[in-house]
Amino acid sequence: MKSLAENKIEVAQCSGFCFGVKRAMRIAKEALDKNKDAGVYSLGPIIHNNQVVEELTKEGLKPASLDDIKKGVVVISSHGAAPKVFSQIKAKGLRVVDATCPYVMSTQKTVEALSKDGYFIVIFGDRRHPEVESLMGFSGGTAAVVKDEKELGTIEFPHKKIGIVSQTTQLPANYIKVISAVMEKGFSEIRIFNTICSDTQKRQESAAALAKDSDVIVIIGGKMSANTKRLFEICSNICKGTYHIETADELKKAWFKGAGRIGIASGASTPDWVIEEVKNKILMIKEEGMGNG
Amino acid sequence: MKSLAENKIEVAQCSGFCFGVKRAMRIAKEALDKNKDAGVYSLGPIIHNNQVVEELTKEGLKPASLDDIKKGVVVISSHGAAPKVFSQIKAKGLRVVDATCPYVMSTQKTVEALSKDGYFIVIFGDRRHPEVESLMGFSGGTAAVVKDEKELGTIEFPHKKIGIVSQTTQLPANYIKVISAVMEKGFSEIRIFNTICSDTQKRQESAAALAKDSDVIVIIGGKMSANTKRLFEICSNICKGTYHIETADELKKAWFKGAGRIGIASGASTPDWVIEEVKNKILMIKEEGMGNG
Repeated sequence: MKSLAENKIEVAQCSGFCFGVKRAMRIAKEALDKNKDAGVYSLGPIIHNNQVVEELTKEGLKPASLDDIKKGVVVISSHGAAPKVFSQIKAKGLRVVDATCPYVMSTQKTVEALSKDGYFIVIFGDRRHPEVESLMGFSGGTAAVVKDEKELGTIEFPHKKIGIVSQTTQLPANYIKVISAVMEKGFSEIRIFNTICSDTQKRQESAAALAKDSDVIVIIGGKMSANTKRLFEICSNICKGTYHIETADELKKAWFKGAGRIGIASGASTPDWVIEEVKNKILMIKEEGMGNG
Repeated sequence: MKSLAENKIEVAQCSGFCFGVKRAMRIAKEALDKNKDAGVYSLGPIIHNNQVVEELTKEGLKPASLDDIKKGVVVISSHGAAPKVFSQIKAKGLRVVDATCPYVMSTQKTVEALSKDGYFIVIFGDRRHPEVESLMGFSGGTAAVVKDEKELGTIEFPHKKIGIVSQTTQLPANYIKVISAVMEKGFSEIRIFNTICSDTQKRQESAAALAKDSDVIVIIGGKMSANTKRLFEICSNICKGTYHIETADELKKAWFKGAGRIGIASGASTPDWVIEEVKNKILMIKEEGMGNG
């Protein structure tokens, strides 16, 4: 990759909304257009970006708990939901609009099929993340969730026919570590699915390439966003000056002192306008710095 | 494990014929009893032990190539044969007596099912071993055979849905290395079967335990025997004085000079009487040594 010119700010090649987020946004907006009077609700953030969620709330998408919704439409977030949640919504006579990312849906189907075929399922991911909660639901609630290979140590597998999937936004290298640790515990059969989505991998690769060539790299994305956390993990291993922010307001002048080559990478649910704001604010900081110097 | 007394010779806990070899011997002898006049043939050694094969040849089991057999019974060896071989035997109007080890048969069925389901198959083993040749046949001839993870480097997978099996007599640790290397090449799905047989694993563990506590360890088994080669590989990494022989005639006095603790381990097709002969010959060498000293 070409060297960044001094005082140049470069945005990672893979940037902006991913396919699944774009799709969820379109579905949510259509639901809002078509159901102006009925009430449109989401059970959690539809994507993991507070700025976007605030915008959608202004447009009428109301965050609510299922108990409080009496009538209208419930939008399932891009991260998906357990089958039980769909049943509960339908049981209340509410309409479902499903914005689950097709990649997540594919993992859900895999988990469901593995469970039906009698595999004990290991899910690599964060057990509090809604995507993983949905996968747990599709497994019939019997899967083991591990965030790293160390967590496997304490898990007793009920039998040795094991299926393994990953949250779509994890790091491939870490997934391989988990799989290897499962193998070390002994097995009769292991079935492994590469459920890390291609956008996640491309985004990680382009962020890593940029980090190698930057003095400072700013990662923009929701604090709850799993794929953004992974970008931070990757870049901070390459570049000392790695910072994770949600908005331009969090930028600090001190980060850029003496830094010529500045990179920007962003999570899959970070809108272009937030990236643009961050870029402009950094330019301003740099110009001020030059004026002072 | 208890320390071996000085000048004591200990035989590994898991020793003598394995289940599959015992069964193959019984089937071959029954075929000989029942078909005294028809002619009983084997297409290769029925088990990988020359001494046993010689005994069976004396009893009437004739090694032959299929082209030369005009009538009678063909015994399939414990290592199995490709479906094509069964068809060829039947096409010639000969009778088949199948002594394939049930563990090998299970791997054959796995390979056949994986192939039908569209998996590209990786077989971990020695491509010239009859068991692996049989597995290749059950894969429809499209599998890749690798003897270690380095061999994977040159292989282009036609697609990324991969099934992996191992020859029944390989080392689990080496199998895991091959699997990890397959994962590193990228995949959409990998299905791994632990086809290393339990006898192989127990035999390897008991040989390793004995090697740790021995000055010299003698491994007895056919030079073509895959499981014996693995025992040699394991023990020579633990004990410098590791030797592989087929019969007592190959023992050398020099090996035992100054060695107090002597271990004997044996492959799955080594008969008890060969083990006994080796033990007695070592005792004789030791006694001579003491007499001289």
